[in-house]
Amino acid sequence: MRIKIGILGYGNLGRGVECAVKENADMELVAVFTRRNPADVKIATTGVPVVKADEAADWKDKIDVLILCGGSATDLPEQTPAFAKLFNVVDSFDTHARIPEHFAHVDAAAREAGHIGIISVGWDPGLFSLARAYSNAILPDGKDYTFWGKGVSQGHSDAIRRIAGVKNAKQYTVPVESALDAVRSGRNPELTTRQKHTRECFVVLEDGADAAKVEQEIKNMPNYFADYDTTVHFISEEELQRNHSGLAHGGFVIRSGQTGHEKEHKHIIEFSLKLDSNPEFTTSVLIAYARAAYRLSNEGQKGCRTVLDIAPSYLSAQSGEELRAHLL
Amino acid sequence: MRIKIGILGYGNLGRGVECAVKENADMELVAVFTRRNPADVKIATTGVPVVKADEAADWKDKIDVLILCGGSATDLPEQTPAFAKLFNVVDSFDTHARIPEHFAHVDAAAREAGHIGIISVGWDPGLFSLARAYSNAILPDGKDYTFWGKGVSQGHSDAIRRIAGVKNAKQYTVPVESALDAVRSGRNPELTTRQKHTRECFVVLEDGADAAKVEQEIKNMPNYFADYDTTVHFISEEELQRNHSGLAHGGFVIRSGQTGHEKEHKHIIEFSLKLDSNPEFTTSVLIAYARAAYRLSNEGQKGCRTVLDIAPSYLSAQSGEELRAHLL
Repeated sequence: MRIKIGILGYGNLGRGVECAVKENADMELVAVFTRRNPADVKIATTGVPVVKADEAADWKDKIDVLILCGGSATDLPEQTPAFAKLFNVVDSFDTHARIPEHFAHVDAAAREAGHIGIISVGWDPGLFSLARAYSNAILPDGKDYTFWGKGVSQGHSDAIRRIAGVKNAKQYTVPVESALDAVRSGRNPELTTRQKHTRECFVVLEDGADAAKVEQEIKNMPNYFADYDTTVHFISEEELQRNHSGLAHGGFVIRSGQTGHEKEHKHIIEFSLKLDSNPEFTTSVLIAYARAAYRLSNEGQKGCRTVLDIAPSYLSAQSGEELRAHLL
Repeated sequence: MRIKIGILGYGNLGRGVECAVKENADMELVAVFTRRNPADVKIATTGVPVVKADEAADWKDKIDVLILCGGSATDLPEQTPAFAKLFNVVDSFDTHARIPEHFAHVDAAAREAGHIGIISVGWDPGLFSLARAYSNAILPDGKDYTFWGKGVSQGHSDAIRRIAGVKNAKQYTVPVESALDAVRSGRNPELTTRQKHTRECFVVLEDGADAAKVEQEIKNMPNYFADYDTTVHFISEEELQRNHSGLAHGGFVIRSGQTGHEKEHKHIIEFSLKLDSNPEFTTSVLIAYARAAYRLSNEGQKGCRTVLDIAPSYLSAQSGEELRAHLL
């Protein structure tokens, strides 16, 4: 009996889930739910029905875990508690500051309905949270560092596109190599925003726009760019499409701590990711936690969980015996 | 109420536990058990009693978790099941091939007595096992690489010391940088033993020993050195003590995997450690899992566990709310 997976929302994440399910022999995709007209949604896997989101209740007994592929700004705060009433759910809610509130809403809904809801799954929050939690528990006396990139920041790209005269733009967040090296040396440096990351922008101008003026507007934009060393390249739309349409990303979580009666021994714990496709990797994490949701629910557990609450063995298709024999 | 910790065995690991307990305000060390004459064991922390190991049963109700600091070859296979009858226990059993058998023995003893036993805690097995388990669950289609070092291998140092004419020796296992780079590139190379690690030996000769003969014996030793590029340096005992008495170690676990309908996207998950003191870091991990043992036991759980069976939140002194607000 394979784990029956449903998808809500067929964008980059939804397509990633569809692809990731195929890598996991113990799972099958049974339906894609959408708020669009189902006839307009062409999915890659033949034979899987595309269903209106508001007809999801009809699928209550046909789906083991629903993976929510909407955005954190407006979709998930509504959808995750709502759908936790019908299904076990997994989401990738990534607005760090609002996690406690989201947790409370999902927990109430999932508990009442007897379901499991796993929130904030992906790589940050997600695998990076795991790296922070494990390394803080092991080295209580230390300092955390998180670096992101090199990768596209959607929010920063959008901010550039809102400037008058800009037709299109992509912004890369780039970790500063010398800052990474300083952290790895165990010197526990205090790093300013500017010292940790640079920002590199590829911008397509509207006809007749003033390049110098756009460049100044970008570089001086508060919060987004003013605190960073920012580079602006003006390129053609064709070059943007050819060289900057990828979705690569990654980052580093480093804890630098010390032990010993005189704190004389330094230790560095480092976790890093280098990803060709941010959405496909994120959905690979979602799928592993969908397996956990299925198992927790089968044990009779209910309520909201995060990656910090779930033992690693729940994520694996292998049995405890196999894991102990081959991976421990 | 602090968690009451006991130590069995006061070598490098025992001293590390003693030191690590001080970093954790929710714990206190209450006794050190030894098979030696207690009067001969001078411990760093004043006021903690040193007790004969065979009187441990008298401490049954005064200790929450006993941390076993013996060796994997002969101590732990006996001690962990035996002491699991009296206490919740945590060990660092690291003979990978014998873990399933050790698990079965500890599980039977702990279940019968109603205790928790957590085995094979440390960094390999331990944190490296976690890295392998998480990354395999997330990227089912991929390849694992583990590199060790730079660090002292006790087994290889011992093997050199057994050669006629050798007075003392230290052997470093060194990962090959170009092999690490090849793995990180996502090319999934097939690497031979020789391509992954080199071995560097610092040897003190007995008076009148034949250096060339010792060097050939080392380099041709089957299993230990014959399959590696090995460098041998002859130095004085004084230089060995001055420059090679440290206990630094570390290593890298990398999973290189692919996703996408055409497997067109590569992903690298990397976990690495750079440790000034192998025993102090190992005991920092043991202490975090002692907290987990205490909590699992308080929940009424019993039997044997490994790091793969325990949710990360059990390791942290912080509450679920705090972890979600600050580390997730």
